[in-house]
Amino acid sequence: MNAELIAVGTELLLGDIANTDGQFISQRLSELGINVFYHTVVGDNPARLKAELERARSRSDLIITTGGLGPTYDDLTKETVAEVFGKKLVLDRESLERIEGYFARRGRVMTENNRKQALLPEGCEVFANDWGTAPGCAVTDGSTTLIMLPGPPSECQPMMTERVIPYLRRFSDGVILSRLVRVFGLGESAVEARLRSLMESSLNPSIAPYAKEGEVLLRVTAKASSREDCETLLAPAVDAIVAELGDAVYGVDVDSLEQVVLSELKKRGLTLATAESCSGGLLSKRLTDLPGASEVFPGGAVSYSNAVKTGLLGVPEETLRAHGAVSSETAAAMALGAARVFCADLGVSLTGIAGPGGGSEEKPVGTVWCGIACRGRVRTLRLDLGGPTRSRGLIRRLATSHALFELLSDIKNM
Amino acid sequence: MNAELIAVGTELLLGDIANTDGQFISQRLSELGINVFYHTVVGDNPARLKAELERARSRSDLIITTGGLGPTYDDLTKETVAEVFGKKLVLDRESLERIEGYFARRGRVMTENNRKQALLPEGCEVFANDWGTAPGCAVTDGSTTLIMLPGPPSECQPMMTERVIPYLRRFSDGVILSRLVRVFGLGESAVEARLRSLMESSLNPSIAPYAKEGEVLLRVTAKASSREDCETLLAPAVDAIVAELGDAVYGVDVDSLEQVVLSELKKRGLTLATAESCSGGLLSKRLTDLPGASEVFPGGAVSYSNAVKTGLLGVPEETLRAHGAVSSETAAAMALGAARVFCADLGVSLTGIAGPGGGSEEKPVGTVWCGIACRGRVRTLRLDLGGPTRSRGLIRRLATSHALFELLSDIKNM
Repeated sequence: MNAELIAVGTELLLGDIANTDGQFISQRLSELGINVFYHTVVGDNPARLKAELERARSRSDLIITTGGLGPTYDDLTKETVAEVFGKKLVLDRESLERIEGYFARRGRVMTENNRKQALLPEGCEVFANDWGTAPGCAVTDGSTTLIMLPGPPSECQPMMTERVIPYLRRFSDGVILSRLVRVFGLGESAVEARLRSLMESSLNPSIAPYAKEGEVLLRVTAKASSREDCETLLAPAVDAIVAELGDAVYGVDVDSLEQVVLSELKKRGLTLATAESCSGGLLSKRLTDLPGASEVFPGGAVSYSNAVKTGLLGVPEETLRAHGAVSSETAAAMALGAARVFCADLGVSLTGIAGPGGGSEEKPVGTVWCGIACRGRVRTLRLDLGGPTRSRGLIRRLATSHALFELLSDIKNM
Repeated sequence: MNAELIAVGTELLLGDIANTDGQFISQRLSELGINVFYHTVVGDNPARLKAELERARSRSDLIITTGGLGPTYDDLTKETVAEVFGKKLVLDRESLERIEGYFARRGRVMTENNRKQALLPEGCEVFANDWGTAPGCAVTDGSTTLIMLPGPPSECQPMMTERVIPYLRRFSDGVILSRLVRVFGLGESAVEARLRSLMESSLNPSIAPYAKEGEVLLRVTAKASSREDCETLLAPAVDAIVAELGDAVYGVDVDSLEQVVLSELKKRGLTLATAESCSGGLLSKRLTDLPGASEVFPGGAVSYSNAVKTGLLGVPEETLRAHGAVSSETAAAMALGAARVFCADLGVSLTGIAGPGGGSEEKPVGTVWCGIACRGRVRTLRLDLGGPTRSRGLIRRLATSHALFELLSDIKNM
């Protein structure tokens, strides 16, 4: 099955937003084994949209449009699709009731133009929108299926996951199942070199790597007649990857380093506190991105000035004088201080030079010390995260990822 | 001048990355007054790329491609463009020397396949790449100009700014200049309603609003024969917007709320400390995203647990018992505590329910209290940031934006 995506919206052509819906839908389709050959973005212009739809129809089995389903006069995707596919737009009573309910729950009166959102091509399969007002739908004509989704990512992406994926699975002659192996601290080419023979010999499941800011994600995808058969195919491949890459694999079917750190802490009833200098709160922000962090994370300090490192975290002034703020000794004292001040089992610290200024020959931009304290004992490590194309933001993100990854081994050894 | 963008790369179709180059280039072209009518993404497939190039050539004055300029066998953009435009690829000696120099500076040997990057269409204008190895170029044929840029955003985006914009300005019969007015706390429709007559009557400069997570950006763009004439056109329009929207305008030609807060603090020699509960470090992360924050930001506390609110920030246990952690009283005590602990002129606090769990009828998800302490005095305000489509992440981001915006008036009144 060959697919293409058409995003409708002048805001995309003006660069006000990036086409993140396109990325999200492509990822999901790729997991189903559906090839995506084109993304197209057109403005809110029915003539140009019509030409793109006609072309897409002539070359793709599946077309997914995003955007242009709203209540205003320039939302014209449904009208244009109906024209190209020769369908009438008819009122879908259930959709209208849902939209009326949406407004009623908010104590607002539904304006008349919102009725337009309940007009759908005759004979389509309706995708109810639990995240907004405009429903999506699938229209089939001959061998081509066209799916329309609303544009806002907060609606489009859950609709893709909850409505479109189950719909598309019905057309599949088998089951496709993926597992995601997450690797930290090895480059993509190192991962590929170590897995080359495995990747070349394994067709079902297939193994596809992709790199993502210091991480490598390996998607292992099996196709079989049942979920159980997929799982039987997947298990030995995932085991072989984990055996080859060892501790660099930090999780399978997990979302992020912070998620694994939190769940390992919870499993053991441990608590963690942070002391951040160069990362300025990003590490605690990442830990608290996830609901339920409060069980294991009492808090942290952003000790941007030396006075705070000394006064709040108890870093000896002598240490700062002798070794500087960016040093193993300071990182150690900060980590111990965090655990003590916040009464936590573990303390983690980051102190470094995020740039663009502040570097020296001895400590160039990107030099970061990480400290990890476990019940009174502490270890530190130096990270060299600089490079000609490494921004301040990237250095800060990488520093926090390294800290989270390093924490894992300490937590597991407690 | 009508333009379109073609991004080349299978990684975009697999959803490994979003087409952020497309967004960036669109923004820059829109600032030049160039209309972008299409974005297309194709994989590393010369036949499909050729078809897209031919179509683009038939309908656009300017085509910008991104990606496919690298050294490997599947980088085929130049070869395909040369075929469509009937040009030979010839070795550009200066580009080759730059590439050799790039490797030499890194102490690495240039492999033979890197020579390929110095092959460029005959007669093109070369855009030197100071951020990587593959040069870009512009090819003109009849009334169509095609520009090729490398794909990695860290190369594509500076090449667009430093090479392509000056190149395109040469074709313009005048100068185009924009100013960006940033508005917080008013919705896009409210801004449009208040500026409608101004927007409708002002053609040069034009006024274009766009919404961005709690903010509205107004781009005011003038076209004239000189930079001075543009500035003369822009000034009264910007003044009229500021007069109409008042304090909701937090800056003109600034990047972000945090930038304005930091610069206002610096101007007055003031310092600020943070105490964060629901935002978990995001506020201090935003303040320290910018280099030089250390002058005005000694540090902050992430007081996720009540024990930290009491022990570190001095929130009375009685306050937490009587009013709860999410209350005006707790926010006030946290802000005062932050200023005291970190010896800062101002303290700002956030405590609330970011969700998805933890809400109640009285304090639903999205209820956030913000406290601002100025030299012993404190004020608080309640933010209601919840809503059916508001994620935990969005609520946290909006809470920090509100805190930064509110801080501005306190700083300016000191």
